[in-house]
Amino acid sequence: MSELAAPTRRYDYVTDGQEIYRRSFAMIRAESDLSSLPRDLHTIATRIVHAAGDVGIVSEVAAHRDVVAAARSALRAGAPILTDSHMLASGVTRRRLPADNEVVCTLRDPRVPDLAAQWGTTRAAAAVSLWGDRLDGAVVAVGNAPTALFHLLELMLDGGPRPAAVVGMPVGFVGSAESKVALAEHDLGGGVQVPWLVVHGRRGGSAMAAAALNALATEDELA
Amino acid sequence: MSELAAPTRRYDYVTDGQEIYRRSFAMIRAESDLSSLPRDLHTIATRIVHAAGDVGIVSEVAAHRDVVAAARSALRAGAPILTDSHMLASGVTRRRLPADNEVVCTLRDPRVPDLAAQWGTTRAAAAVSLWGDRLDGAVVAVGNAPTALFHLLELMLDGGPRPAAVVGMPVGFVGSAESKVALAEHDLGGGVQVPWLVVHGRRGGSAMAAAALNALATEDELA
Repeated sequence: MSELAAPTRRYDYVTDGQEIYRRSFAMIRAESDLSSLPRDLHTIATRIVHAAGDVGIVSEVAAHRDVVAAARSALRAGAPILTDSHMLASGVTRRRLPADNEVVCTLRDPRVPDLAAQWGTTRAAAAVSLWGDRLDGAVVAVGNAPTALFHLLELMLDGGPRPAAVVGMPVGFVGSAESKVALAEHDLGGGVQVPWLVVHGRRGGSAMAAAALNALATEDELA
Repeated sequence: MSELAAPTRRYDYVTDGQEIYRRSFAMIRAESDLSSLPRDLHTIATRIVHAAGDVGIVSEVAAHRDVVAAARSALRAGAPILTDSHMLASGVTRRRLPADNEVVCTLRDPRVPDLAAQWGTTRAAAAVSLWGDRLDGAVVAVGNAPTALFHLLELMLDGGPRPAAVVGMPVGFVGSAESKVALAEHDLGGGVQVPWLVVHGRRGGSAMAAAALNALATEDELA
């Protein structure tokens, strides 16, 4: 590295990270109507809008009434975060986690390709089965593969371990919207659900799912 | 792990990864109008739509006429990919890269916090300066921080190393749209530009930037 000097400032832009956050959240609050959402979802929806770059996403946000409390208390108690992709795991801001929580993605487990082939499903779905007992009480986030979300629901409906909360935000054109409806409507018996948070429709993705996790991890907007 | 059996299939969904891709891309082509884009951008725009979960994003895609050829030939020749976030680096599908290209994110370099404080800018912007000589001929992608994109343009306008191509897709409410206009309009003298690819407006993000990189890396849609 021959030299390390700041380049000549040639554009007019905000360079203070905290100030960028403050202005962004103020713009989001000014432009979006969060009144249809319960109070404890407002900071979560604000972060999802921030990740989407679109206030219109608010109308697609839906949640079980207990999801914020359930996810927060699980994370404070040290629950792991389980994700369907490494990109999503990478988007979790570690300093926001209340208990240095483990963030786990099993997609590269060497058993995954064989299980996927044997079961006739995707690697992302097979990887969900490798969460094993860690699923019990965990906070799960799916930001990529609808098949992973369907597989998780099938494990739960088979009587498998129940997570504390599920962030369901797969993106895409095939199965994505349907998987999120399935999560919002699942019934473990007698109307019992695992608390859930979704962005309905085709949109979603690792960035929005990570934003949701980061907002669930702490109430502090600027942490 | 007590047992590893597939759960009971309870939902009707496509489980073949390649088939999901094929159907997704067919739906995107059926629903979107790519006619305003040059032919060599069609597969790139299709992947960006796929990552966005929204065909409406097509109208925001814009590019320098040489960007696909420039990025492909740089990657084939072994150029590194430089990214502004670890999440974006994590979204690059390594098996699509033609020369086992290095993917570099300098955000966690220990010099970053001090440089950012000293220069009065964000860590993401300071990290761009740590790309150093690797920037020369590299393929750059910015999926998060507008300040990183402005900083890169300022380095280039100061006469610094020139990348082969820049994917500019920061997301957000403060500076994002402006940074992409600045990239699309930069002039290194006599109208010379580094080839660029942007998603104009507030939208963008690591997922769309990774999709663009993955599409630039190989023409094979199903790789």
